[in-house]
Amino acid sequence: MAVAAGSKIEQLAINTIRTLSMDAVQAANSGHPGTPMALAPVSYVIWNRFMRYDPEHPHWPARDRFVLSCGHASMLLYSLLHLAGVQKVDQQGEPTGTPAISLESIRKFRQLHSPCAGHPEFGEADGIETTTGPLGQGIGNSVGMAIAARWTAARYAPDEASLLDYNVYVLCSDGDIMEGVGCEAASLAGHLKLSNLCWIYDDNRITIEGHTDLSFSENVAKRFEGLGWNTVTVEDANNLQAISGALDTFLKTTDRPTLIVLRSIIGYGSPNKADSHDAHGAPLGEAEIKLTKNFYGWPEDAKFEVPGEVVEDFANGVGQRGRQAYADWKKAFDAYGQQHPQQRTELQQIWSGELPGNWDKDLPVFTTKDKGATRVTGGKVLNAIAKNIPWMLGGSADLAPSTKTLLTFDGAGHFGSADYAGRNFHFGIREHGMAAAANGMALSGLRPYVATFFVFSDYLRPSMRLSSLMRLPVLYVFTHDSIGLGEDGPTHQPVEQLAACRAIPGLIVARPGDANEVAEVYRAVMPLVDRPVAMILTRQDLPTLDRDKYAAAAGAARGGYVLADAPSGKPSVILIGTGSELPICVEAYERLVADGVAARLVSMPSCELFESQDAAYRESVLPADVTARVVVEAGIRQSWDRYLGMRGQFIGMSSFGASGPYEELYEHFGITPETVVNAARALLA
Amino acid sequence: MAVAAGSKIEQLAINTIRTLSMDAVQAANSGHPGTPMALAPVSYVIWNRFMRYDPEHPHWPARDRFVLSCGHASMLLYSLLHLAGVQKVDQQGEPTGTPAISLESIRKFRQLHSPCAGHPEFGEADGIETTTGPLGQGIGNSVGMAIAARWTAARYAPDEASLLDYNVYVLCSDGDIMEGVGCEAASLAGHLKLSNLCWIYDDNRITIEGHTDLSFSENVAKRFEGLGWNTVTVEDANNLQAISGALDTFLKTTDRPTLIVLRSIIGYGSPNKADSHDAHGAPLGEAEIKLTKNFYGWPEDAKFEVPGEVVEDFANGVGQRGRQAYADWKKAFDAYGQQHPQQRTELQQIWSGELPGNWDKDLPVFTTKDKGATRVTGGKVLNAIAKNIPWMLGGSADLAPSTKTLLTFDGAGHFGSADYAGRNFHFGIREHGMAAAANGMALSGLRPYVATFFVFSDYLRPSMRLSSLMRLPVLYVFTHDSIGLGEDGPTHQPVEQLAACRAIPGLIVARPGDANEVAEVYRAVMPLVDRPVAMILTRQDLPTLDRDKYAAAAGAARGGYVLADAPSGKPSVILIGTGSELPICVEAYERLVADGVAARLVSMPSCELFESQDAAYRESVLPADVTARVVVEAGIRQSWDRYLGMRGQFIGMSSFGASGPYEELYEHFGITPETVVNAARALLA
Repeated sequence: MAVAAGSKIEQLAINTIRTLSMDAVQAANSGHPGTPMALAPVSYVIWNRFMRYDPEHPHWPARDRFVLSCGHASMLLYSLLHLAGVQKVDQQGEPTGTPAISLESIRKFRQLHSPCAGHPEFGEADGIETTTGPLGQGIGNSVGMAIAARWTAARYAPDEASLLDYNVYVLCSDGDIMEGVGCEAASLAGHLKLSNLCWIYDDNRITIEGHTDLSFSENVAKRFEGLGWNTVTVEDANNLQAISGALDTFLKTTDRPTLIVLRSIIGYGSPNKADSHDAHGAPLGEAEIKLTKNFYGWPEDAKFEVPGEVVEDFANGVGQRGRQAYADWKKAFDAYGQQHPQQRTELQQIWSGELPGNWDKDLPVFTTKDKGATRVTGGKVLNAIAKNIPWMLGGSADLAPSTKTLLTFDGAGHFGSADYAGRNFHFGIREHGMAAAANGMALSGLRPYVATFFVFSDYLRPSMRLSSLMRLPVLYVFTHDSIGLGEDGPTHQPVEQLAACRAIPGLIVARPGDANEVAEVYRAVMPLVDRPVAMILTRQDLPTLDRDKYAAAAGAARGGYVLADAPSGKPSVILIGTGSELPICVEAYERLVADGVAARLVSMPSCELFESQDAAYRESVLPADVTARVVVEAGIRQSWDRYLGMRGQFIGMSSFGASGPYEELYEHFGITPETVVNAARALLA
Repeated sequence: MAVAAGSKIEQLAINTIRTLSMDAVQAANSGHPGTPMALAPVSYVIWNRFMRYDPEHPHWPARDRFVLSCGHASMLLYSLLHLAGVQKVDQQGEPTGTPAISLESIRKFRQLHSPCAGHPEFGEADGIETTTGPLGQGIGNSVGMAIAARWTAARYAPDEASLLDYNVYVLCSDGDIMEGVGCEAASLAGHLKLSNLCWIYDDNRITIEGHTDLSFSENVAKRFEGLGWNTVTVEDANNLQAISGALDTFLKTTDRPTLIVLRSIIGYGSPNKADSHDAHGAPLGEAEIKLTKNFYGWPEDAKFEVPGEVVEDFANGVGQRGRQAYADWKKAFDAYGQQHPQQRTELQQIWSGELPGNWDKDLPVFTTKDKGATRVTGGKVLNAIAKNIPWMLGGSADLAPSTKTLLTFDGAGHFGSADYAGRNFHFGIREHGMAAAANGMALSGLRPYVATFFVFSDYLRPSMRLSSLMRLPVLYVFTHDSIGLGEDGPTHQPVEQLAACRAIPGLIVARPGDANEVAEVYRAVMPLVDRPVAMILTRQDLPTLDRDKYAAAAGAARGGYVLADAPSGKPSVILIGTGSELPICVEAYERLVADGVAARLVSMPSCELFESQDAAYRESVLPADVTARVVVEAGIRQSWDRYLGMRGQFIGMSSFGASGPYEELYEHFGITPETVVNAARALLA
């Protein structure tokens, strides 16, 4: 696919991207002009010459993806979406005749309620494939997108890969390449031989503190070759021919992902700020913008100028090619659907975020004989669910035998370059890369789960935050959830992680207290398609409660429920427990009631689900006038004060843990039925 | 330094390490035997043939460091400390005649109160250089240790480097190499040309899920060459000659760090479990231990057997060499001290964790004319302090112009391979590696600070947790601390990070509300040598309070203080604010008081410092009987419920932020004097 180097219309289009970006940043008096100016040529070539993308159908499942991992260059993306005429679509994904990004929105770049936010925000406008800005996340997402393409194609149309497979084009910066998550993602992509993945590394040698010589002297290409990538270097980011050649090499490479090292000049065209960090994170200034526009041969006083022929050029390029490709695809997919009605149904469910009917039909019910760790129960429940949701898939950061997250039913398979239809993933010891990839998988409609020890939730927290910000239904399975893991000691014992996870807006944190609560919490959260869930499970065995004696586990779906009440129905003290501390509360409750104390026992597996109930229900579980309350959880107190008030007692941790058998640790840290009973008595005294 | 391959005593010593490890894991019925069995030979060679280490003086500042980054192999370290006769030392660092790790302690491996915890815990026994276990952290620390060696030598004895410089030997595993933080650390070390750093990568090709083929197919050596490292491969982890040769290569390499790729067999010697993940994380079992001991030529029923000649071998090796080296060093250091009394004093302060006298003499006092962001004030205060603490040094993850953390006084310099005496560090866009390195620097006695945007505290959280667990005085400077950063939008706006940081046991979180509080908080926290501090600073300008009108900023040292009281001294409502919301509270307070409401205004820059005050003081600030309270903070509510009780009102965030000018965001999210006044009035109604 030869591209003439810098024909007039091409230069005009490229300079339109540049000037729109400069003007928007200047108008906002805030933002990053230099990178859009540098990367306009490569973006132009990708969009107008290479991408399989229909601007009228930005949700087309088989479209190529464009990820701007250097999200601070957001004006580059907004300019492209505008110039390519990407449409705002309706519920059915059909064009509405309204642009996804209007020129008016660009004029309001970085203003409240404009879809043109400081960094691209998924959901703000059609065509924004993912939220980027925190460095390394976009490239991490892109690995998940490439995985999703390979998996969907291998599972549903192995003989007709082009029906469902697609390429993922990513622009990334020094920051993406330096961040650890980026290396994890790259290592995983190399291992998986994701040849549908192309990262274009903007090698501009400038970071915020100055020249990369200050901190970064790697041979990036060599590193990536070690990671199993194909690498191509383009010496001049303005050489469209060379860029095109490199992208052709990507298309021809079938056994590895491709890294294009693109030597660029930040702020290209700015006489006084190009090639310096002054062009990075601040407006160029009116005077410099004029000089730069002069350099481009642009009318120096024009603002937000979009030449008609540029719009036409995009319409004739990506627009026309995309329209045809989409029409062809639709025809092919209709034919496919005729032949494979079940697969078509599944694919439509994937693309619309629905669950199959009866997905929960095999959810197990456990009896008191089923003593076991909730991680073990969790594994059984996960298998029972995943069996009936064919696109539920995932794995752990090299801990599956411990997290019990392996899918063991027939046909589950193992995802890898030898079998892209497998559903068990081996993410390696790369928690952060795993979570970033899971976001990319969820963005593609799959229902991913990822697993590790709870303490290592800290390692993937930036991606978990983005799951929540993007409202993606990623399931995080975190086992070994407290001092209850025992001998591994304080480095491995979560203490503050429950509070820290509950702090993330939107994330549902669930810590079921027995096997049936595990099942019921899963039943409650799986249909939530717009929130991530952190499922917190024990390493150690727990009893399964006798539900003839205690309230039905279905109550867990409401987050908190009365497990057993004061015999009178009028409690004077309430015990609240979660997870492995629930049995401790049960024992304390039994002792108190036996001694004639009017105690109520509340199981609270998920504060977030409880808070989403109506006020009357919450009051029925935790009546405001019962202020004698004891919360028991082997973590810190912080997130419980809201139910404890000034008076309540907390039995849990206030320091890091220790190494030893877990029974001894519970004694050592005073988390026992005895201390709970004493706390309740003290409150009533 | 030629080592005969496997002489009898060497084999005996190596097998002693192996059998001690196997026996301890078996006795604990928990732990990781396979890696100590595999790495016993290389450890033996490092300790007994290479390390400059005096077992009688494990705190000797110029000792070589040994870091077991694969901390799960902790029995390897405990065995070495025991066999080498490392001493428990007194306050002066002199031997007490008691072993740091007794055989009795090894017998109690992984039991409560044994120094032989599941993973090595810094502080549990002399000779444990750092806490390891969370993968990637040990190698990250090692970069900081190597930096500290280079810096101390360059600053204090540039002409006599051997007086203060040392080497850092690190054993690491697949996990360390796969974790992103490991790549960040390696990239930084390569850039800095830390030729005193040697990582030995245990290339056993086995992880918990099985063979590394499942997830890890990199060419690690090639990756590290790309990162600027020297690499050497040793094909057989039992070949002492080859190991010795590789270590010789390390010693001879003066321009790069060295990676030794050591092909090993996990669980070497175990007939049925070697080379499989069965040897990784569980005891071998009594029967297999017997078979393995047979293979080693070891008495099969002997338990915790330590042959006298092995102890003697270590005494004749590292013991004798170390004693002589330490004596020589002491003599040299005495001579140095005679010639350089000031430098000697400083070094002794570094090694004992003291601050110089008058370190705070230049702390600025700000007037109401000094309107500015607290990040700007923070930069001034940091400079005023660092000027007088010569070993206070640090930098940011490529954000110094934004975090304002550059040291600008004469002679501050820039740390790099061209000037190892510089004090400004350029960590690159590697937050996690930066924090892990800072822990290593603090372990070496330096006072490091690291800086980034507050939202990116999530990226380095695992290392910050370890700062706290190890009780290291690392200063974290986090700027751009709320929606107040404005246009960069929700990806960059911290919302949950204040709660998440406050959740970490031991970490002091401080969010000063004006310029003078910045200075006073610094004055309070710098002398705390056993706690990390997170200093949370604004991007946007704040007024400097008129301290003639409001209480003195010195109150900030107590974490919370009454800034202005109800005119009667008997408040009916208390307003509590932090950081950039303090001025909002001030305005609300003024309006309420003008309207005759008995309001008290409390500034609470640090809940942790406030909680460390006595009960009487806390009651004097927040009287229990005043339950009408309003907390104002542009983060989530979670950590404030303890002061709000069931009744109090919170004005802050309950969702992610948005992109726009910050003044509009404060209006949009309802964090204004108006809402504070209304909340106070509602409470009093």
